[in-house]
Amino acid sequence: MENELKTMKVLDNRILQEGVCLTGGALKVDFFINHQIDPYLMKQISIEFIRRFADLDINKILTVEASGIAVATMLGYMMEVPVLFAKKKQPITMSSAYHTTIHSFTKQNDYEIVVSKDFLGPNDRVLFVDDFLAFGNTGCGIVELCRQAGATLLGMGFIIEKEFQHGRDALRAAGVNRIESLSIIESLDNSTIHLKTNK
Amino acid sequence: MENELKTMKVLDNRILQEGVCLTGGALKVDFFINHQIDPYLMKQISIEFIRRFADLDINKILTVEASGIAVATMLGYMMEVPVLFAKKKQPITMSSAYHTTIHSFTKQNDYEIVVSKDFLGPNDRVLFVDDFLAFGNTGCGIVELCRQAGATLLGMGFIIEKEFQHGRDALRAAGVNRIESLSIIESLDNSTIHLKTNK
Repeated sequence: MENELKTMKVLDNRILQEGVCLTGGALKVDFFINHQIDPYLMKQISIEFIRRFADLDINKILTVEASGIAVATMLGYMMEVPVLFAKKKQPITMSSAYHTTIHSFTKQNDYEIVVSKDFLGPNDRVLFVDDFLAFGNTGCGIVELCRQAGATLLGMGFIIEKEFQHGRDALRAAGVNRIESLSIIESLDNSTIHLKTNK
Repeated sequence: MENELKTMKVLDNRILQEGVCLTGGALKVDFFINHQIDPYLMKQISIEFIRRFADLDINKILTVEASGIAVATMLGYMMEVPVLFAKKKQPITMSSAYHTTIHSFTKQNDYEIVVSKDFLGPNDRVLFVDDFLAFGNTGCGIVELCRQAGATLLGMGFIIEKEFQHGRDALRAAGVNRIESLSIIESLDNSTIHLKTNK
């Protein structure tokens, strides 16, 4: 079962203390996730993901460049499984790839994400992790890449979920039935961070 | 003193076994560094960087998105210092930044790298790490960003150096006097990986 209402206190505090609300529903966490990275926090986050997904038989961590790579690397290290990051455009050196198009509401553009056919296939039991769950578009793209590859997508873990953008509903509709977010933001109204707190 | 002729056996073997030579002097290491990441190898690499830079009083790890983030995160975790990754374009959310232009010989284009003024300054004693040292253009850009910020750039560590592209000379000319590369490729002539081996 998911722990939808359990959030991670140490992470909540960092978000409240160092997060910055921006216009248009964006939250800047450049101090410890998106530009500067606190690697010790990444370890704490990884441990929490391991706890929440403890019942799953995961053999690959999947993320998207660039902000997901830090947490994915730490989680893969702790779990002793390889990490794969989807790229935002197909390098000329990548001969054979799965790809899909993502629409970014934040940037109001479309972009491709790709993974090489060499690294995703029917033997992979995948946990996808990323920094943010917003509208769920990236996650839905990951569902599509895993479908193309025949990989089993076991769950998705996010450091921060912006609940008011309803990405969880989009992911559920796409067939993802294990979603864990470590901090959940109910709103950023009036430039104030309203976190969902533990019961 | 640098260990210019000491390379890392476990990494050399991975490069020989899994690296792929491409036309134009490129080496594909997608199996364990650039697309799929072996996090245990990233730990071994981090330990080796720590050994080589043991005499330096480092308080920040700097890298460039995206392929440098994995090793930088692991190294920052081991050394208990924050990690900062330069971004390849300035996000609209970043108000105040240092930036410089890099020329990519591989892709034959110019691109900007930026770091926020919030995270790089005169108190920072920086170790820069990246996956590849090729022509040294990225490294020279990092020298410039550190100069703008007034940060002290103590050294640069690379997982793989393509010696035949002479980036080391470019970095020395830019004033970097501690450069460590864990595997050194002398040539990729005839689509064969020729590694510099230990004395």
